[in-house]
Amino acid sequence: MPVLVMKFGGTSVATLDRIKRAAKRVGVEVAKGYDVIVIVSAMSGKTNELVGWVNETSPLYDAREYDAVVSSGENVTAGLMALTMQEMDVPARSWQGWQVPLKTTSAHGAARIEEIPPDNINAKFGEGMRVAVVAGFQGVSPEGRITTLGRGGSDTTAVAFAAAFDAERCDIYTDVDGVYTTDPRVAPKARKLEKIAFEEMLELASLGAKVLQTRSVELAMRYNVRLRVLSSFEEQSDNAGTLVCAEEEIVENNVVSGVAYSRDEAKMTLISVADRPGIAANIFTALSEGGVLVDMIVQNISEEGRTDMTFSCPTDQVARAEAAMAKAKEDGIVNFAELIADVEVAKVSVVGIGMRSHTGVAAKMFQCLSADGINIKVITTSEIKISVLIERKYMELAVQALHDAFELDKAA
Amino acid sequence: MPVLVMKFGGTSVATLDRIKRAAKRVGVEVAKGYDVIVIVSAMSGKTNELVGWVNETSPLYDAREYDAVVSSGENVTAGLMALTMQEMDVPARSWQGWQVPLKTTSAHGAARIEEIPPDNINAKFGEGMRVAVVAGFQGVSPEGRITTLGRGGSDTTAVAFAAAFDAERCDIYTDVDGVYTTDPRVAPKARKLEKIAFEEMLELASLGAKVLQTRSVELAMRYNVRLRVLSSFEEQSDNAGTLVCAEEEIVENNVVSGVAYSRDEAKMTLISVADRPGIAANIFTALSEGGVLVDMIVQNISEEGRTDMTFSCPTDQVARAEAAMAKAKEDGIVNFAELIADVEVAKVSVVGIGMRSHTGVAAKMFQCLSADGINIKVITTSEIKISVLIERKYMELAVQALHDAFELDKAA
Repeated sequence: MPVLVMKFGGTSVATLDRIKRAAKRVGVEVAKGYDVIVIVSAMSGKTNELVGWVNETSPLYDAREYDAVVSSGENVTAGLMALTMQEMDVPARSWQGWQVPLKTTSAHGAARIEEIPPDNINAKFGEGMRVAVVAGFQGVSPEGRITTLGRGGSDTTAVAFAAAFDAERCDIYTDVDGVYTTDPRVAPKARKLEKIAFEEMLELASLGAKVLQTRSVELAMRYNVRLRVLSSFEEQSDNAGTLVCAEEEIVENNVVSGVAYSRDEAKMTLISVADRPGIAANIFTALSEGGVLVDMIVQNISEEGRTDMTFSCPTDQVARAEAAMAKAKEDGIVNFAELIADVEVAKVSVVGIGMRSHTGVAAKMFQCLSADGINIKVITTSEIKISVLIERKYMELAVQALHDAFELDKAA
Repeated sequence: MPVLVMKFGGTSVATLDRIKRAAKRVGVEVAKGYDVIVIVSAMSGKTNELVGWVNETSPLYDAREYDAVVSSGENVTAGLMALTMQEMDVPARSWQGWQVPLKTTSAHGAARIEEIPPDNINAKFGEGMRVAVVAGFQGVSPEGRITTLGRGGSDTTAVAFAAAFDAERCDIYTDVDGVYTTDPRVAPKARKLEKIAFEEMLELASLGAKVLQTRSVELAMRYNVRLRVLSSFEEQSDNAGTLVCAEEEIVENNVVSGVAYSRDEAKMTLISVADRPGIAANIFTALSEGGVLVDMIVQNISEEGRTDMTFSCPTDQVARAEAAMAKAKEDGIVNFAELIADVEVAKVSVVGIGMRSHTGVAAKMFQCLSADGINIKVITTSEIKISVLIERKYMELAVQALHDAFELDKAA
């Protein structure tokens, strides 16, 4: 029988009633003829409680014990979900990570999945079991200890299972009903996308449209796992939610698929840096060692052997960046006149696979912003997105204007 | 290094502060040179919460899923205890049942321990680990599924580990400070016993002095594991609590060690039963099949081929006993005139290893009760105890009088 993976997040299994509601959704797919692998998170709030206890007990905790403690919430949900399915007369059982076994690296707290042998679960499917409920977020290390995959790891668990079992699709049930062209709180005309390409989803996710964990989308793209994002709080038709899939599966699409934004950006400019080979490497090595997450990087026009170097980072890392640069100057690694921090900026991006084959997107974007009197401070581009830094007070205006300009409220 | 097993119950690990307090006790034993195996229960209330969820989800639950869910509380405590020990700079790690592995039968919800291979934990002790924190109450079945040992199973886990590791002693930390000559709420002169023999503890436990789970005492007796019961809420000296040990280790002892009682007893009398071979078997088979837990059995003097048969059972099983006997009469299996239920009785027992070699205990007991005008309704005896049924209203009086008569307030 074809296999379907269904993942339910913490809010979707927060109470016994919600577990029952989720189980009914699973029952619908079983009735269609699927063998279903259900991935569950901990009941919402439970993992935070456990993390709180660990932090209070041991601020610099042993990550192996952290994993042993915080993984327990998913085990509870898995057992309760299996029991709920059984009450509906659907043959089901629960699996903890080590029972599958979901093999991971030993990087406790942020382990990577290495292998999911499908034999044990397939044997049970062969015996008539219809639903395997698997505790998400956890695995087992080569040393036989429990590992966790890091926050949001249940999405990654779901995609990995879909790949290992060659599932027809991986449905991610969450508290939003899909992926939108932009944040509906900022642009009320935002429209739910029926389909979106993996690459676009990655750009939207890392730019702040936090529906799916980035790692899970990367994994889905690598193994071509069709992901569907949909709400567990609404009655679902067969085409509900948003399908995240390969570009080829999207027949018609707008040139631009979405507008993303990020509010807490800072623009940092190093004035009068010696313009010689290796200097950029020195700057960004110093920032990396200082723990600064650099996003955009722009090098301005050089003049008489000196140049200005601009980069952006989250506003809460400005102090760290300043300290790292001050130390680099003191150590004689980087020579510069001044470091100017502009913490009143935001990043706005337009994203779309269609940009690969259409010209004029950048021009249209800049014209649109200019028409509203919005000055662009920094520009960066990739194959499928264009990002700009602008004054933060214009952020909402920019998102709305771009959404209108690219007619994102209309389907292709 | 010598091994010590220390077990902490739910109230002893109910909060992070109490876990810290327990960890300090463990630290004291480590400082003395012991390698310590700590067995922990779930934080008090947690297991009940999980059991409640399972019952609400599925009244006739799959016991395998029940076990997967309810075992999670112990995992949390084990990890937190290991972290707490590490914070005290004591090398420690946690072990879940399947990691040891603690191998059990497949009788989910009431599994029996089959084997505890000590190799994994001993290897870690060899590498310098000083404390192995083990989640109590749980194990793994031959099928690789999580099992639980039934209520109070953490005591049994502790004793089994003490046997498997040839531990010097198994300390059971609980919310009482030891085993008393009787219930201090009934007889204020009750005295804490320094030592008590396994056999005496079994009689006291099954008679209502519920400090230790009966199974754990049986196991301790079989493997000669010295058990110490003591409070986790008091500062402890080296000789605190009560040592439950082999008879040979108790040099001086009173003839009688304790007075036990049970309040909710019913005396049932079958009047005019045909006195022929096989009739007792028929009666007690019928009761057993009716789910009645029969305690005492007495056959009265036979007269003209008819006899009276008396037995006792818990008061809440009287209706069940009456139904079973009515059915047996209807089916022609047992012929009797009448079944009289006396639900206003209590059982009082004196227990003591010393009875084996001392005569006159029964006489002294009956004289004592008689002196206070207490009529004895039924008497049964075993090698180390004498039990009587009396009118319930005299129960407290009888316990106090016997405690005085056998001078249990004075040490041997």
